Amino acid sequence: MPKKNILYAQSGGVTPVINATACGVIETARRHRDRIGTVLAGKDGIIGVLAEELIDTARERKRDIAALRHTPGGAFGSCRYKLRSIEDSRAEYERLIEVFRAHDVGYFFYNGGGDSADTAYKVSQIGARLGFPVQCIGIPKTIDNDLPVTDNCPGFGSVAKYVAVSIMEASLDVASMASSSTKVFILEVMGRHAGWIAAAGGLARRERGEPPHVILFPEIPLDEKAFLARVDRAVKRHGYCSIVVSEGVKNPRGQFLSDAGTRDAFGHAQLGGVAPVVAEMVKSALGYKYHWAVSDYLQRSARHVASKTDVEQAYAMGSAAVKLALQGKTGVMPIIERVSDEPYRWKVGEAKLARVANREKKMPRRFISRDGFDITPAARRYLEPLIRGEDYPPYDRHGLPRYVRLRNQLVAQKLAPFSP
Amino acid sequence: MPKKNILYAQSGGVTPVINATACGVIETARRHRDRIGTVLAGKDGIIGVLAEELIDTARERKRDIAALRHTPGGAFGSCRYKLRSIEDSRAEYERLIEVFRAHDVGYFFYNGGGDSADTAYKVSQIGARLGFPVQCIGIPKTIDNDLPVTDNCPGFGSVAKYVAVSIMEASLDVASMASSSTKVFILEVMGRHAGWIAAAGGLARRERGEPPHVILFPEIPLDEKAFLARVDRAVKRHGYCSIVVSEGVKNPRGQFLSDAGTRDAFGHAQLGGVAPVVAEMVKSALGYKYHWAVSDYLQRSARHVASKTDVEQAYAMGSAAVKLALQGKTGVMPIIERVSDEPYRWKVGEAKLARVANREKKMPRRFISRDGFDITPAARRYLEPLIRGEDYPPYDRHGLPRYVRLRNQLVAQKLAPFSP
Repeated sequence: MPKKNILYAQSGGVTPVINATACGVIETARRHRDRIGTVLAGKDGIIGVLAEELIDTARERKRDIAALRHTPGGAFGSCRYKLRSIEDSRAEYERLIEVFRAHDVGYFFYNGGGDSADTAYKVSQIGARLGFPVQCIGIPKTIDNDLPVTDNCPGFGSVAKYVAVSIMEASLDVASMASSSTKVFILEVMGRHAGWIAAAGGLARRERGEPPHVILFPEIPLDEKAFLARVDRAVKRHGYCSIVVSEGVKNPRGQFLSDAGTRDAFGHAQLGGVAPVVAEMVKSALGYKYHWAVSDYLQRSARHVASKTDVEQAYAMGSAAVKLALQGKTGVMPIIERVSDEPYRWKVGEAKLARVANREKKMPRRFISRDGFDITPAARRYLEPLIRGEDYPPYDRHGLPRYVRLRNQLVAQKLAPFSP
Repeated sequence: MPKKNILYAQSGGVTPVINATACGVIETARRHRDRIGTVLAGKDGIIGVLAEELIDTARERKRDIAALRHTPGGAFGSCRYKLRSIEDSRAEYERLIEVFRAHDVGYFFYNGGGDSADTAYKVSQIGARLGFPVQCIGIPKTIDNDLPVTDNCPGFGSVAKYVAVSIMEASLDVASMASSSTKVFILEVMGRHAGWIAAAGGLARRERGEPPHVILFPEIPLDEKAFLARVDRAVKRHGYCSIVVSEGVKNPRGQFLSDAGTRDAFGHAQLGGVAPVVAEMVKSALGYKYHWAVSDYLQRSARHVASKTDVEQAYAMGSAAVKLALQGKTGVMPIIERVSDEPYRWKVGEAKLARVANREKKMPRRFISRDGFDITPAARRYLEPLIRGEDYPPYDRHGLPRYVRLRNQLVAQKLAPFSP
């Protein structure tokens, strides 16, 4: 059997550890040179695959590939581009197969969220139908932690750690000054439809009364009166109130509290700036001086405070994809299976892409306290192991992390141009 | 000579390392038990001193005092409260002396910025006049780096490191996605009147063309046309544009781009939210999709990514204050003197408070590029040593930093209540 190449592509929003997955793919593939050719990577994700812009990772130095493990962002580029149904996007699916055929691609690894799992699943179907079967493997990645079947998603743990550490630190600041200055601090975090990231802020509180005092979840329509009462109580009891708010918080009519009005390529509303809205709500009702922060991309690129658990899982998912490929699997995704909470143990499992695709895992209601402003002990048991351990990037002598920039050299094109 | 106590108070906005200074004061004082009594700390700063709410640090465990070195925020509380002239605030100055007398305070250490240096200076004058001479020592602290005489201010280096690391990481994220998604990223940082913090963002760029591509300083009135041209050029050349903007940026008419309209206790305008203003400017003129982050208190509490240089200097300033006190000095402040840039060497110096008080050190114009959107090599030479080295806090097994919370037990009050 001739050696086939792997084609790896990153999809959607990047994470602090998606490159750790790429590192796992490439390093593991390089250990199986007898059976795997090279690892090609789509430049800017699936868009580069369609355009036949394929990066040859064999031309990268071993140490640069190793450095992917600690480099945030997406080293080959990513994109938000969703292939529609096979009927609607037939030409694109056929183009993918054409590219695979031209570059001896036997394995297609698509590293992303639910949309990407769906695409990988469809590609696995069409390849067989077009007489060029490709083993399609999805690799989980999303800071939103909203993929089903897998216990958690690589990328989430590090964002969770960033949020928990950040609200803990900022709360120490606010607590110091509250007697004469800012009394309410609001940290806005990502999480469009699921409150996983906001929930992680709750981990900063180890004892009753500690911050954060309020968490606003997208799952719970904002009861303004109850919220303000809770803020006021926290200020009166502790001198200040520390709040984590998800960008996806909605009012009781189901509207986002802050909707910038624009939409991304997937048709999702582009959000941002709910923190100032909540701040003004507090100020006008209670009169407290406030400060707010919007961490935005900082939270999903903060490799400097990554979770060691997360880095290890992200790497393991990449490595497992190669092993699944070598076992002849297709239409599957490696997943994280939790063996136990305490001590935390996990192992690599496997799920059919059809079960993962296009399904969003909401946070269970039992993870949110009855009043809707806090996490429960069950949530804490689930979340806490995911932020465990530190995994610092190396720093140079100038005090900055040594993040790698790859050469990203393209292989020669063999096909006619394609316009999607 | 009977042993006198030290009274230590934190003032103004806290920093990631102000507690390292407190640690330096207390640990050094404890090594001179033959000559120094205890270290008392004002609860919530000078307000607590006026209210005779004094924390007895002798009742804290040795290991908790040691943990101050890696704990952000202000461990005893701080406040924004400025004593006016001796004529206008005579009762308050007299009250301070009364409290000092009642609690055997021979040394008053005021840890803050320019306003605090001014207060410490005035207290040193009035003590002698009222027949109770107290040795008054200012200890520098401000993330704004705007104190004169000292080469740099403890607190600034860690904020600078946070900003440089954050813009470096977020830019890797944006670069990954720019071909199909966000093209402009804006990070808003603190710095009301001086662009030191914004300038630190420039350290993230090691080679030409690397991010950040634009820095907006409070020192340079925003030339909107030139700014937009520069953003457009960066997007066309690099695919994206990464921007660091100071909260204090003004338009050519001298108005803050975003002024929340409220004022703090010192009468300074409370700013916030210039990033979305700049983002909309870009969007409406150039049409690029944007994201923005406002790091706010996160930047000044991010002890998890502190500069080792900064931590060492903060500690050294606290330690030096005790030594100056033991040498009989008053009306002085320990300062950082730079011996050389490369290799970076510094030593502890000493300045008269009268020279430090109420003077703001602006960033020299020669630190800003001619076009006003970048830092110069001179700025880089100055800034770069200040973010050198990592000094991580210890983490617990749950993945969170072990920040200490002190007991903060007050000594018994001896005086009648006082209302300022």
